[in-house]
Amino acid sequence: MKMKAEIIAVGTELLLGQIANGNARYLSEKLAELGIDVYWHATVGDNAVRLTEALKTALARVDLVVLCGGLGPTMDDLTKETVADVLGLPLEADQEWENHLQQFFSSLGRYMTENNRKQALVPRGAKILLNEHGTAPGLWLEHGQQLLVLLPGPPRELEPMFTQEVAPRLAEYAGSEPIISRVLRVAGLGESTMEDVIADIVTTQTNPTIAPLAHYTEVHLRLTAKSGSREEAEKMLDGLEERIRERLGTAIFGRDEESLAEAVAKILLGKKLTLAVAESCTGGLLSTMLTSVPGSSAYFLQGLVTYSNRAKMDLLGIKPALLREHGAVSAEVAKAMAENVRRRAASDLSLAISGVAGPDGGTEEKPVGLVYIALATPQKLDCRKLTFLGTRESIRERAAVTALNLLRLYLVS
Amino acid sequence: MKMKAEIIAVGTELLLGQIANGNARYLSEKLAELGIDVYWHATVGDNAVRLTEALKTALARVDLVVLCGGLGPTMDDLTKETVADVLGLPLEADQEWENHLQQFFSSLGRYMTENNRKQALVPRGAKILLNEHGTAPGLWLEHGQQLLVLLPGPPRELEPMFTQEVAPRLAEYAGSEPIISRVLRVAGLGESTMEDVIADIVTTQTNPTIAPLAHYTEVHLRLTAKSGSREEAEKMLDGLEERIRERLGTAIFGRDEESLAEAVAKILLGKKLTLAVAESCTGGLLSTMLTSVPGSSAYFLQGLVTYSNRAKMDLLGIKPALLREHGAVSAEVAKAMAENVRRRAASDLSLAISGVAGPDGGTEEKPVGLVYIALATPQKLDCRKLTFLGTRESIRERAAVTALNLLRLYLVS
Repeated sequence: MKMKAEIIAVGTELLLGQIANGNARYLSEKLAELGIDVYWHATVGDNAVRLTEALKTALARVDLVVLCGGLGPTMDDLTKETVADVLGLPLEADQEWENHLQQFFSSLGRYMTENNRKQALVPRGAKILLNEHGTAPGLWLEHGQQLLVLLPGPPRELEPMFTQEVAPRLAEYAGSEPIISRVLRVAGLGESTMEDVIADIVTTQTNPTIAPLAHYTEVHLRLTAKSGSREEAEKMLDGLEERIRERLGTAIFGRDEESLAEAVAKILLGKKLTLAVAESCTGGLLSTMLTSVPGSSAYFLQGLVTYSNRAKMDLLGIKPALLREHGAVSAEVAKAMAENVRRRAASDLSLAISGVAGPDGGTEEKPVGLVYIALATPQKLDCRKLTFLGTRESIRERAAVTALNLLRLYLVS
Repeated sequence: MKMKAEIIAVGTELLLGQIANGNARYLSEKLAELGIDVYWHATVGDNAVRLTEALKTALARVDLVVLCGGLGPTMDDLTKETVADVLGLPLEADQEWENHLQQFFSSLGRYMTENNRKQALVPRGAKILLNEHGTAPGLWLEHGQQLLVLLPGPPRELEPMFTQEVAPRLAEYAGSEPIISRVLRVAGLGESTMEDVIADIVTTQTNPTIAPLAHYTEVHLRLTAKSGSREEAEKMLDGLEERIRERLGTAIFGRDEESLAEAVAKILLGKKLTLAVAESCTGGLLSTMLTSVPGSSAYFLQGLVTYSNRAKMDLLGIKPALLREHGAVSAEVAKAMAENVRRRAASDLSLAISGVAGPDGGTEEKPVGLVYIALATPQKLDCRKLTFLGTRESIRERAAVTALNLLRLYLVS
């Protein structure tokens, strides 16, 4: 029989509207993938009385209660204490976790404050869920026929903890018909364009299902299959993936968590090619993406953030005349940047970006969002003129991602 | 006396995690501005039984219930019907709104379907709240000592309806005190350490209140004051801010939305100082942060991503002997990187980062997370040895943020 779940988010900042309840969204999606029905979301502040009421209400109507937030070291963090109180369980120090914390703080050359010691206290019978990104552990607590899972509030801590520590245990605990999903990641195609290409598949598919989701600079296609066995479900996904790849081809750059930078890295490593980068408006973002991949030193030789014209001249030897004649934001300068950084770094390939990120500095002729991206290879020197909409931040991000994707398409073509 | 409120969001898409509950965030923020305390958020699917339970629970504990979603013309829209049912009120056609709808549809050259006629039905005694962006009206329903407000789900309908139709009525109805809050942003102190320093203030403060919130590389202190007038509330916040600043001093880098990079930018611009950067393990992230601020070309001269030893030698003139003797991850090399990039860029200041971001490449002597950050100024050349925990991504981010903060502390000291 299917498990019913309630998600209780704890945090006054939610009730003050300072942040949206992204954890409830994330957890709901993940629980659905595990075949668990989420019937309720509740949010309370950092208040023991109301948390107690919410917890009692939840325990009266669902099998699984997931609490997020209120596990930190500070005085307003009450979740663990309230859960122990409602269930009538004593709090006991988890020696293993206390030692872990001791090491953590001494490794930082800090001493462990009392309120941090509090983090090693757990309700009797609770199992620790490791937190690789913070000091507050999560808790797995089976109580009679019910299950309580306590998770930290910060998404950076909650999300990896859920996928690594909670999801596998839950799948086993719930023993529900496995629902397996797989994400195909698409770059360089808009959501609507992509849907056009695969509309007939999307509409006729029932199991596995296909859910396209625009993810800012990418589109993700989530394929979800339900079946008696994981193997069976995987086979179903393989078949559907193959059909979709026939339509989208190289627009699909990766699967599941694979980032565009990782996809590019894999190809560069495979072909033993090296890369150098010169950036103006993106200010280092393209280099950051390229070096986000472990082992990137094997292919990434150097990156130059030539934000000023002075730097373009000094570091890249761009001719003042070229800058005067065409301006820093031009195909000519972008090409020269790519050509020169490739020669100076003695790399196989190079990318250069020059554009107007805004919000200021736009003109009639060169509006905010105008970006030139140049790619230099042993065979050729290409430049693309693009216009991106959005904030300074999104223009910079779209430009860097587009450059990465141009490189990828060159490498796979 | 202050009104207590609960927000009930209705919609299965929320429980499936397809969208986050942005309406609860928006409404909570607006209600707080009106001096209304939001004590609860609840979310239920399009299900009459559970919506009934949620509504009864809310009516048992708050003065104001705001429901959003489920007002549309389709069969799964049950909010209005459920409210009428729970309160024992008949649904009656609102002639005015029915005429309005007639006109609306004929203006579109469409005829009004039966399920649209359903939208003109309202619980007896309810007042229509105009919807300029859709066909579903909102409802204002005073029931004994309690108030229910029903709003449509789509934010583009809900938000203008709230500001134009609801807020003015509520201000009058509640006649309550405004709540104003302010965020102090702290860098370089852990949440627990910081709370130690201001524990006595945090515990003794009731109005204004203080809520510490860990934000990954920062800690935010939210001060919230309630008072008869905005001016008075602001004064209360000023007083408390002053007390906290006496304790935390320069650890506080900004207020509200100000980012660390913006804080640094402001000081650099004010002092007319220029900066150059050399990065190894952070791979361009520090440059990215520094150039994320509009107008950063005024102080940011150049950034060198010298990821390989080759690049450290070519671009920064680091002596091979120095790299051999101490290794790239060392105080000596970090200092040389800072010194050389400052000289070559002819900048006033420079930052250099060299470390082991991992997950590979760590050794007993130089473990993953070990980072050297050097700061070169006209007066001195400093280097800090730090150890960060976490993923490659978080080690890189913590290193870049720490470098920014070291620069800031130098500038304000």
